[in-house]
Amino acid sequence: MMHFDFNNPTHLIFGSGSISRLGKQELPGKKALLLMSGGKSAKISGAYDKVTAQLKEAGVEWAEFAKIMENPLKSAVMEGAAFAKENGCDFILALGGGAVLDASVAVSAMMTNPGDLWDYVQGGTGKGLPLQNPGLPIVTVTLTAGTGSEINFWGVISNPDTKEKIGFGGHPSLIPVLAVVDPELMRTVPPKYTAYQGFDALFHNTEVIMSKGVNLMSETLALSAIEHIAGYLPRAVRDGNDLEAREHVAYGSTLAGMTMQLTSTTAQHSMEHAMSAYHHNLPHGAGLIIISEAFARFFIERHACDRQFIKMARVMGIPEAHKPEDFITALQKLQRDCGVADLKMSDYGFTPDEFMTLAKGARAMQGGLFAANPCELTDVDCAGIFEASYR
Amino acid sequence: MMHFDFNNPTHLIFGSGSISRLGKQELPGKKALLLMSGGKSAKISGAYDKVTAQLKEAGVEWAEFAKIMENPLKSAVMEGAAFAKENGCDFILALGGGAVLDASVAVSAMMTNPGDLWDYVQGGTGKGLPLQNPGLPIVTVTLTAGTGSEINFWGVISNPDTKEKIGFGGHPSLIPVLAVVDPELMRTVPPKYTAYQGFDALFHNTEVIMSKGVNLMSETLALSAIEHIAGYLPRAVRDGNDLEAREHVAYGSTLAGMTMQLTSTTAQHSMEHAMSAYHHNLPHGAGLIIISEAFARFFIERHACDRQFIKMARVMGIPEAHKPEDFITALQKLQRDCGVADLKMSDYGFTPDEFMTLAKGARAMQGGLFAANPCELTDVDCAGIFEASYR
Ligand SMILES: [Zn+2]
Ligand SMILES: [Zn+2]
Repeated sequence: MMHFDFNNPTHLIFGSGSISRLGKQELPGKKALLLMSGGKSAKISGAYDKVTAQLKEAGVEWAEFAKIMENPLKSAVMEGAAFAKENGCDFILALGGGAVLDASVAVSAMMTNPGDLWDYVQGGTGKGLPLQNPGLPIVTVTLTAGTGSEINFWGVISNPDTKEKIGFGGHPSLIPVLAVVDPELMRTVPPKYTAYQGFDALFHNTEVIMSKGVNLMSETLALSAIEHIAGYLPRAVRDGNDLEAREHVAYGSTLAGMTMQLTSTTAQHSMEHAMSAYHHNLPHGAGLIIISEAFARFFIERHACDRQFIKMARVMGIPEAHKPEDFITALQKLQRDCGVADLKMSDYGFTPDEFMTLAKGARAMQGGLFAANPCELTDVDCAGIFEASYR
Repeated sequence: MMHFDFNNPTHLIFGSGSISRLGKQELPGKKALLLMSGGKSAKISGAYDKVTAQLKEAGVEWAEFAKIMENPLKSAVMEGAAFAKENGCDFILALGGGAVLDASVAVSAMMTNPGDLWDYVQGGTGKGLPLQNPGLPIVTVTLTAGTGSEINFWGVISNPDTKEKIGFGGHPSLIPVLAVVDPELMRTVPPKYTAYQGFDALFHNTEVIMSKGVNLMSETLALSAIEHIAGYLPRAVRDGNDLEAREHVAYGSTLAGMTMQLTSTTAQHSMEHAMSAYHHNLPHGAGLIIISEAFARFFIERHACDRQFIKMARVMGIPEAHKPEDFITALQKLQRDCGVADLKMSDYGFTPDEFMTLAKGARAMQGGLFAANPCELTDVDCAGIFEASYR
């Protein structure tokens, strides 16, 4: 496809040590909501000290809200927005991994809009109302290389009341105005999470390449991202202080933020969102890894996009690739090299009687992504992929 | 280099037929200065009728200023800005090739700032004052695939009084807010200009790859652009109605607009600007073609960036390339295939006694680009490149 729409207004500052440039930028307000996770990663990594020093340098005040969890909940979003209003914050500085960055999109919207987040959610039980007011500006400092959310205006929010996990966003005001991607801040991410997040970034790009909506620009960016992630993720997993490896993985992850604005990902993401909505303890990247081989095999067996699989295999360490199955070979090797080849659905509490429930949940929560699949994928097909992935 | 700063806020709409989407966009004003060349290309290509129909659909008025020439003059910029003010225009719709797009940056600044353009020009005899006011918003519809100016906030303006040709711009307000790149509008560009413009786009990308400032992101984009231009430019030159070829060349040209914001081009561009400043009848692309082989040989002989030349050769039709000279082989073939291998400096009035004048002019007008060269290039070296290129 030759048509595309590139609209990526985020000013992206990339590179090791780039956090030291934050204070010199023109920030979009006078008082930041400093949005962080409830965990310790921002402090352990040194990111908290560096960011607050930069805010001081910029003459910006802040109020801290450090209660975002993995798979962020709607309740935390609503609480964060209320806290920001009470404290007179006029922009968000989101400091964290995918969960914090995802939450920032929703918090931004709820800082300026009445009612409940689910009033504005499209799909599932969301009311799908348009935002009445633009959100407040977002600045992101990412602590992980995974979601690409640092330059993206979508966030996935979980609602335990309805057992839903749905993407929210899409309003132009919710695109971060500034994003700092500093791989030095990622040194302390533990190996397991480095792998999960790196594979999440990988699949954002592989799904773009498989997608019906792939175009010249998204293909260029996604293949480059896949090459760098596949080439360096094993090193980053083995040694978190391997800064060169961290840089290449972060590059691939940030590119995914752009490719996903150019081209939709596929139902692999819908399927994973159903998995972690029903089993909240499953990290997003781990869920994707578990189903990724069967998901690719489904389309390879149907010759849905053979050339695209071959292109990916060629940048994943098999330069002589000539058949779509070579992608599976490369994917299996990468999973082994990153120590994630043995993940089991049963370890996260899944049972075989759930496959059709998960399949229907995937379509109910994120049905839109199914349109990007390179050929039809029914609920029965989805259940079959879960079954093939089950151990 | 792993550091980069990506800041490309232009909303880019790319693809054949995409002009039909212009009227549905939120345009940045109520009355456009419709900036065009003094030639007939906008009318012959049908672009004028399509654009004005879209403006009507959007409910936007316009005033036409169709006096921009190849190598746009300062006087035309000043006259266009005065015309826009008289007519109450609140944004610019730049419809044309590189000259019009370049001029639009300067016209935008002079619509809101007092004095003369040269008050704000950096370098040469320019006074280098900062702009007092932001320029008015720019929307671009490009009729050629060459400069990448459709998404860029730099324009090259000529000043015959001082015999200068200098890049002006760089203020955030001068970045186009919206750019439509519709290859269908390029069908009527004559073969010779298709080649000149295509090579200009090629060299923007090859210079980025050779540049000291190349980084992961600019390398990814520039290599993709080089691959598509080298692969399709000969077809676009042979048959202007070969829309597939036009699309790939336009893609490479537009990517160059992004790569040039990530990484500076080299002194090859300074050298050409001196050539066409002294010989106003020389098209920019033709000048670049004339010096390109000797310019590359200079750095190849000094092993300044061997790997970069090999990477380029590999995407220019020599997948097995393993030595920097392979780039020269690919470049020569592409020039032959596009019918531009026989361009002569003497045909444009150059004489051998000018080489040192041109060399000094290049540094005086655009000395900054010399810092991007992969190794030192003195005035004597520059004169040597002109001499080697002379026929
Ligand atoms: Zn994901
Ligand atoms: Zn040029």
